[in-house]
Amino acid sequence: MKRIGFIGLGIMGKPMAINLIKSGYDLVVYNRSQASVQELSKQGVEVAFSPMDVAKKVDVLITMLPNGPEVKEVLLGDNGAIYGLSKGKMVIDMSSISPVTTKKIASILAKKGIRMMDAPVSGGETRAIDGTLSIMVGAYKEDFSNYYDLLSAMGSNVTLVGEIGSGNVAKLVNQSIVAVNIAVVSEAFLLGAKCEVNPESIYEAIHSGLAGSNALQSKFPLMMEGNFEPGFTLELHRKDLKNILETAQSLDVKMPLTKMVTEFIEKLISDGEADKDHSAILKYYEKISSFNLV
Amino acid sequence: MKRIGFIGLGIMGKPMAINLIKSGYDLVVYNRSQASVQELSKQGVEVAFSPMDVAKKVDVLITMLPNGPEVKEVLLGDNGAIYGLSKGKMVIDMSSISPVTTKKIASILAKKGIRMMDAPVSGGETRAIDGTLSIMVGAYKEDFSNYYDLLSAMGSNVTLVGEIGSGNVAKLVNQSIVAVNIAVVSEAFLLGAKCEVNPESIYEAIHSGLAGSNALQSKFPLMMEGNFEPGFTLELHRKDLKNILETAQSLDVKMPLTKMVTEFIEKLISDGEADKDHSAILKYYEKISSFNLV
Repeated sequence: MKRIGFIGLGIMGKPMAINLIKSGYDLVVYNRSQASVQELSKQGVEVAFSPMDVAKKVDVLITMLPNGPEVKEVLLGDNGAIYGLSKGKMVIDMSSISPVTTKKIASILAKKGIRMMDAPVSGGETRAIDGTLSIMVGAYKEDFSNYYDLLSAMGSNVTLVGEIGSGNVAKLVNQSIVAVNIAVVSEAFLLGAKCEVNPESIYEAIHSGLAGSNALQSKFPLMMEGNFEPGFTLELHRKDLKNILETAQSLDVKMPLTKMVTEFIEKLISDGEADKDHSAILKYYEKISSFNLV
Repeated sequence: MKRIGFIGLGIMGKPMAINLIKSGYDLVVYNRSQASVQELSKQGVEVAFSPMDVAKKVDVLITMLPNGPEVKEVLLGDNGAIYGLSKGKMVIDMSSISPVTTKKIASILAKKGIRMMDAPVSGGETRAIDGTLSIMVGAYKEDFSNYYDLLSAMGSNVTLVGEIGSGNVAKLVNQSIVAVNIAVVSEAFLLGAKCEVNPESIYEAIHSGLAGSNALQSKFPLMMEGNFEPGFTLELHRKDLKNILETAQSLDVKMPLTKMVTEFIEKLISDGEADKDHSAILKYYEKISSFNLV
């Protein structure tokens, strides 16, 4: 079996790497922070000293990093993976980054004959642990087929979207819809509560109709509990939203709703709520209307 | 079996009345436009000459009208139903109107000992025909129990939300979410298309995740076909949105997303799109970004 490199053992990356180990893959890992590295080291995983060092030892390199600049640094920077990868090797970037950045990196790697696919995920920490992430893949069909089993060790819904960069395009579309769907749930239910109608009763009446959504179903109960433990943080959602708005601006696409919700999230973050779950968008609404849902 | 009055035989009202007939109810109808009246008359339904005339002949009066002013006129205006209803009779207003208006009307009727419940619906013409509407009820519990079977002849999901007016509160919450969810699907998928990724592939990758919604599932295929036949018209959605914003303003609740999408719909209507399905919000985005989804 091929050796797999894994760089980026954060909240998402660590459980994803563990699922690869459980599926019998032979891992070499690198991570800036050492706590996760030591945990995986105890499970018999080889620890490398730099991205280049990982790259030299593996056939496939997976990266799971916060954003585009980190992916560029790890792949193309000093001691970057590009200096350890030889022709025909594969980079699978599972980070959520701008598809423009993905394409730039892929074209640089391609000059050395290194293949790349983007495979950002959705589903959050719980589904990363369960190995049931949705994985949106931008790749050549042949590469997708070849690495389908590998990706399936981390996710239950692995979809080829299109060419390289398409995975991140799907992720941007996803994150725009999620942010706005959560925001309007907050906005609308706050009106209902201010009308002195029990939000749970409204939920019962509408959740199976056209207003129904996975955001409503999964976030409404947390809003009612005032439980804003992540989940997926406002900080990370802001990062995705900024990638969306930059991409949209570069293509002259207008995204007024996404822009508006990004501003709400920025205000929340400047109020110290960065580490809350994105369902805490409710708190922005509670503030501007001086009224609480519960 | 009680005699049922039915006023308002429009796109929704007519199939709802027909479902009552099919369930064996004895109907007396009134409608300003005569085409629907004649159709129901052929089915053996009694036709009355005014709302008052209907009211005199029935135990329960159902109204299904475009908006608050029409409901007020029919119930409280010249030859209005109030002059034909006696103590203990029941008015079920199934129109989607402002809950503030609902409460005002209910309190006027209550002075004559006439009971009222609000029971606005969602699901559109198709589900009105199928008798599978969602019906959101604001009523005393006892009244809800007494008229549950009657309502169930028109809908498959009949929910008691709370006191009188609560049905329309739930409907407002519903319509705000629906409008914004449709709008952000348009906004986000247009970005995806501009990135030269096939929208159908993006849909496949994201529709079962947190971005999934009933609006996405039911409207995305129509958007891809460019099929904007209603369904539910932009004109009617604007009416609901104006009721939402008026209610919100009167209660000092801020609804920035709902307000923004209302403005999009108003621009579409001033461009002559009033009779299109609300999924035609896509056309607003296509215009401002000078780019078409398909």
